[in-house]
Amino acid sequence: MKLTPWLSLVLVLPAAAQTPVEAARAWREEHGARILRDYAELLAIPNVTLDRSGIRRNAERIRALFAERGASMELLELKGANPVIFGTLAAPGARRTLGIYVHYDGQPVDPSRWTYPPFEPTLCTRALEDGGEPRPLPADGEALDPEWRIYARGAGDDKAPIPALLAALDALAAAGIERTSNLVFFFEGEEEAGSMNLGRFFDAHKDRLAVDLWLICDGPVHQSRRPQLVFGVRGITSLEITVYGAARNLHSGHYGNWAPNPGMMLSRLLASMRDEAGNVLIEGFYDTVAPIGAAERAALAAIPDVDAALKAELGLARTEGEGRLEERLLLPSLNVRGLASGNVGAAARNVIPNRATAALDVRLVLGNEPGAMLELVERHVAAQGYHVVRDEPDLATRREHDRIARIVRGGGYVAARTPMDHPLVEPLTAAAESASGEPVVLMPSLGGSLPLYLFQEKLGRPLVIVPIANHDNNQHAPDENLRIANLEYGIDLMAAILTMP
Amino acid sequence: MKLTPWLSLVLVLPAAAQTPVEAARAWREEHGARILRDYAELLAIPNVTLDRSGIRRNAERIRALFAERGASMELLELKGANPVIFGTLAAPGARRTLGIYVHYDGQPVDPSRWTYPPFEPTLCTRALEDGGEPRPLPADGEALDPEWRIYARGAGDDKAPIPALLAALDALAAAGIERTSNLVFFFEGEEEAGSMNLGRFFDAHKDRLAVDLWLICDGPVHQSRRPQLVFGVRGITSLEITVYGAARNLHSGHYGNWAPNPGMMLSRLLASMRDEAGNVLIEGFYDTVAPIGAAERAALAAIPDVDAALKAELGLARTEGEGRLEERLLLPSLNVRGLASGNVGAAARNVIPNRATAALDVRLVLGNEPGAMLELVERHVAAQGYHVVRDEPDLATRREHDRIARIVRGGGYVAARTPMDHPLVEPLTAAAESASGEPVVLMPSLGGSLPLYLFQEKLGRPLVIVPIANHDNNQHAPDENLRIANLEYGIDLMAAILTMP
Repeated sequence: MKLTPWLSLVLVLPAAAQTPVEAARAWREEHGARILRDYAELLAIPNVTLDRSGIRRNAERIRALFAERGASMELLELKGANPVIFGTLAAPGARRTLGIYVHYDGQPVDPSRWTYPPFEPTLCTRALEDGGEPRPLPADGEALDPEWRIYARGAGDDKAPIPALLAALDALAAAGIERTSNLVFFFEGEEEAGSMNLGRFFDAHKDRLAVDLWLICDGPVHQSRRPQLVFGVRGITSLEITVYGAARNLHSGHYGNWAPNPGMMLSRLLASMRDEAGNVLIEGFYDTVAPIGAAERAALAAIPDVDAALKAELGLARTEGEGRLEERLLLPSLNVRGLASGNVGAAARNVIPNRATAALDVRLVLGNEPGAMLELVERHVAAQGYHVVRDEPDLATRREHDRIARIVRGGGYVAARTPMDHPLVEPLTAAAESASGEPVVLMPSLGGSLPLYLFQEKLGRPLVIVPIANHDNNQHAPDENLRIANLEYGIDLMAAILTMP
Repeated sequence: MKLTPWLSLVLVLPAAAQTPVEAARAWREEHGARILRDYAELLAIPNVTLDRSGIRRNAERIRALFAERGASMELLELKGANPVIFGTLAAPGARRTLGIYVHYDGQPVDPSRWTYPPFEPTLCTRALEDGGEPRPLPADGEALDPEWRIYARGAGDDKAPIPALLAALDALAAAGIERTSNLVFFFEGEEEAGSMNLGRFFDAHKDRLAVDLWLICDGPVHQSRRPQLVFGVRGITSLEITVYGAARNLHSGHYGNWAPNPGMMLSRLLASMRDEAGNVLIEGFYDTVAPIGAAERAALAAIPDVDAALKAELGLARTEGEGRLEERLLLPSLNVRGLASGNVGAAARNVIPNRATAALDVRLVLGNEPGAMLELVERHVAAQGYHVVRDEPDLATRREHDRIARIVRGGGYVAARTPMDHPLVEPLTAAAESASGEPVVLMPSLGGSLPLYLFQEKLGRPLVIVPIANHDNNQHAPDENLRIANLEYGIDLMAAILTMP
């Protein structure tokens, strides 16, 4: 995303000679402050998936923003579902129809763990971990600093494509540049809760979703900060395991050494699941992994090696298992995303807690089926001597079994991967390179999970993931943010894509 | 605490022939409702150790209650310390002076985990886990049900001796029965925070604390519900261990399988500390344990075996290690009292948390020194490949070390044990048996911890622990309670002790 010397020169040419990317750049250099303020306004609307009223306000606002640009917009509704923002925008003499998928909902928030409130968007002079300080939103005419970051839930995941699209449409219109593709907008409001109604929406509106290519605008660009196109995603499932001590919390003095300690039991159980290097020891865990093909292997080899830089950035002296990040993401994972038992810190008390719980997520690759993978985990737990139950065990069950594990299974979905030789991949790659001035990274699979299998299964249409956000956007965590350079890249990228030959 | 036939008979004799226990029983049968309401009023004053204002209100109230009974009361003050409620009450022709230790402060509370608010004392028809329901406090003349429980922080640990003493003093006065011992009251307000100023109070007031025997009124009676006298306590210390992943939370999709998982690291570390049966594997952990003597061994053999009943009550199919509860309490313990990493339940998100923390307490027996025991734990952590730090590691430290454990050591103190052949043990035992009508359990050591070593070290005086509360009082946990039968036993016991020959 550096400005090449050539691009610096062409900025002084008259508007008539502008390329789409030049037009986008000129537009955002003149109107950047307003674009950013408008984005802050959108981020201020709470978008946690289960916050029905916040979600509705987001949907209405986004619909209006696109309608103002001439798109034909509506909210698709299904009983019990958050609305899908649907729209079309025709281009005269269009060469194709592109589908644009975005999700406007965000992960839950624990405001106590955020530096600034998650729904009071805060502009900072750089990343907080690099000493960024809050500063006012810019006034009209004030230039944006590409290293600024705007902090808010959804800033990176996944509202970022919205201001990028809006500004690109404005820039092209102002420069009188025609778009070359019809557009179909499909903005989902339940992605962070597992896209539980996406298939039903697809079934209900299949005819209106018959595009030539879906652009899945989500996820982060490459950790090298180079632009990226991604051809697949991991699937996901999850489970919670609770192990039990006595039927109530006990005084650790009066019973310590005698009553079983659930924290210790859980630790032993989890420790049995992975080796010291991080490899999963659960029998059969890697057996169903589909091998990758030659094209993917070639693409992997061409990806810049970011391991050393990432390790330095993240303060890591080692990583798990064997192989580079991109290779590790082509394997299923077993992640402890939460541990809870009793209390730590100031609230710690001298008790033997009556239970200990671990929340785990399991990322899936091609070949893994969610239910079957959970079955493997459950069999492993049973093989460690645990009586596995679905509900809170009663006293009789507790008296009968030495070790009891309650396993609550989460939902999930399979992975997806798209072939790398679609005819639109070449113009898309050129668009991303013209927007960034750098070679694009072609990634066989994202580590994260999106319900892409539905696009293939229900709509039968190809797709490519087109990310905008910085990789260090704290997605799903406190202090989520978008780097301004990535917003700028997104605007330029959208202008290039909407006009690609 | 059953009423023996003999006692039932004597209740009908005229007042002049009453024994002290009969007088206590008659008094509480007439005034039980008021005694319980007054206790509820005292429990309604919040007493968390660090709540300075609540502590002060408790101290003033308790001072007034004893002053009303003719005791000479004052608050002992030290800068930065919670007040000690000190008092004396002479008996004409006293045969000795007894010291009475109680602590009026309580453990921290997390109200969200209590069935009823911890400082809104709630009387229930029986234990909540047995289906107890709230009911109004009794009106004057209404009989108490011994299986009622009063729920509030401090109800069992350790305000219970206060209403017992007050009612015993009232009962003896009403019956015209002379006390046989001078009394010295010493009620501490910082026990639950580790009695950090107790030694200073002893140093400052040593001359006024030269009693013949200290009665430590704290802890629960035996799990068989038989009365108990205890001759020692375990010591205690604690530590918190935090292990680190990346410098920030990471998306479990984009980095899962590559970035180290702190929850899994902590599990492996904790699992290395104890075997499947619960025995501690830390080198040297059992090496300094002082062997028990013949008297203690004989006492242990006479203690009713409560393991089977306790296991049934607590819903346990097994216990840790080898041996009965009483034997296990004569060994040091390593208890995981808290685990925390990321989130579980509805708040769980798909991140690799950047840290995981375990809070541990270590119970000590005679021979164990707190600092030396923590040193053993720390050496074990280092032997598992961890770089041990005291403060939050910076990025350079993180980059340099594969595995980092931050260990924060808590304070603590050593165990204490008193010889079982003091001349007052026999009359004390008789007093407890006359109050309860059952044989008393003589216990070499309580599993819990009290700063008893200070009584021996600073004051050079013997002591015996004289518990009142039920063993299932949820001490240190949510839903702490006192069983009414135990309050009644406490009243009768105090009347017997204050008049013992």
